[in-house]
Amino acid sequence: MQYPQPISKLIEGFMRLPGIGPKTAARLAFFVLDMKEDDVLDFAKALVNAKRQLSYCSICHHITDTDPCRICDDSSRDQTTICVVQDTKDVIAMEKMKEYTGLYHVLQGAISPVDGIGPEDINIPDLLKRLQDETVQEVIIATNPNIEGEATAMYISRLIKPTGLKVTRIAHGLPVGGDLEYADEVTLSKAIEGRREI
Amino acid sequence: MQYPQPISKLIEGFMRLPGIGPKTAARLAFFVLDMKEDDVLDFAKALVNAKRQLSYCSICHHITDTDPCRICDDSSRDQTTICVVQDTKDVIAMEKMKEYTGLYHVLQGAISPVDGIGPEDINIPDLLKRLQDETVQEVIIATNPNIEGEATAMYISRLIKPTGLKVTRIAHGLPVGGDLEYADEVTLSKAIEGRREI
Repeated sequence: MQYPQPISKLIEGFMRLPGIGPKTAARLAFFVLDMKEDDVLDFAKALVNAKRQLSYCSICHHITDTDPCRICDDSSRDQTTICVVQDTKDVIAMEKMKEYTGLYHVLQGAISPVDGIGPEDINIPDLLKRLQDETVQEVIIATNPNIEGEATAMYISRLIKPTGLKVTRIAHGLPVGGDLEYADEVTLSKAIEGRREI
Repeated sequence: MQYPQPISKLIEGFMRLPGIGPKTAARLAFFVLDMKEDDVLDFAKALVNAKRQLSYCSICHHITDTDPCRICDDSSRDQTTICVVQDTKDVIAMEKMKEYTGLYHVLQGAISPVDGIGPEDINIPDLLKRLQDETVQEVIIATNPNIEGEATAMYISRLIKPTGLKVTRIAHGLPVGGDLEYADEVTLSKAIEGRREI
């Protein structure tokens, strides 16, 4: 005997999510059966609403329920700086820091020839368009410190530098609270390379 | 800045599920945003349908979308044996074995004085009612081999035995494929106690 059809459909639904196998999916499905009907309805609505109401900001490509997004629309933010990140979640991480007050540009990816992702597949052309109106004075490239992220940073900086704009890259080094002993050699070499007088 | 409201609602929804913290919830929510709209709709429907269409069988308390459930309704099954289990998932586990052809009775819990669960809080009265019509000849008690399960098994067997019905308990011992070296002493002692001639 299999599970009754409604529950096996729900298990299949959970299994489509990343990192959830058949056992976890069954556990979650049975949990849903014990939830209050209103809570289940709310969750189902949240799923559909998130999919339907959210889109990408036409300016910075951050995920948003308004267009332009609240960050692009906020005139109190520093309009002269754009921080280029790979992913929506990177914007959230930066915003949590509460120190950066400039704008963002979300690439939604990184250049990765292995996966067939070239510069035209991520939002680089849009970034260049944003730089044309001369309000922007600095582009901070905050792509991930890995091969794809570095390649993307390099590519973008080569495109922008000729225009005379200031292009910076976030610092590489040891994470705060980290341990020198456990740092890999590349990070350590970057930390030495980027040393500053104190 | 927080996440846009539709996505933070979805993250909250995922966080209500067991074993899903804020990071996993965010990961799942962003995955949903990248899913096809139809798949999201299907998943949302599956959630609501599972909650709405499923109920507990009025005879055996197994979860079902028909009443009585397919097992109780299947006249080809051995009507003389009832296997008592704690949980719906235990029925699924037994059915996977494909060797047991009798009926089930799902207690939906076990006696646990610590948690304030007494015999009247689980489906024991219903079990006794089922035994009155004299078709049943054997009750196999397959509650979990832990304190609550054993207490429940003991309680049920004391209730039923005076009626002259055969009451059995599933065997305790080493799991197949297990290792003697890593077996705990209680299991080992049960394995010795339950030894059989070969």
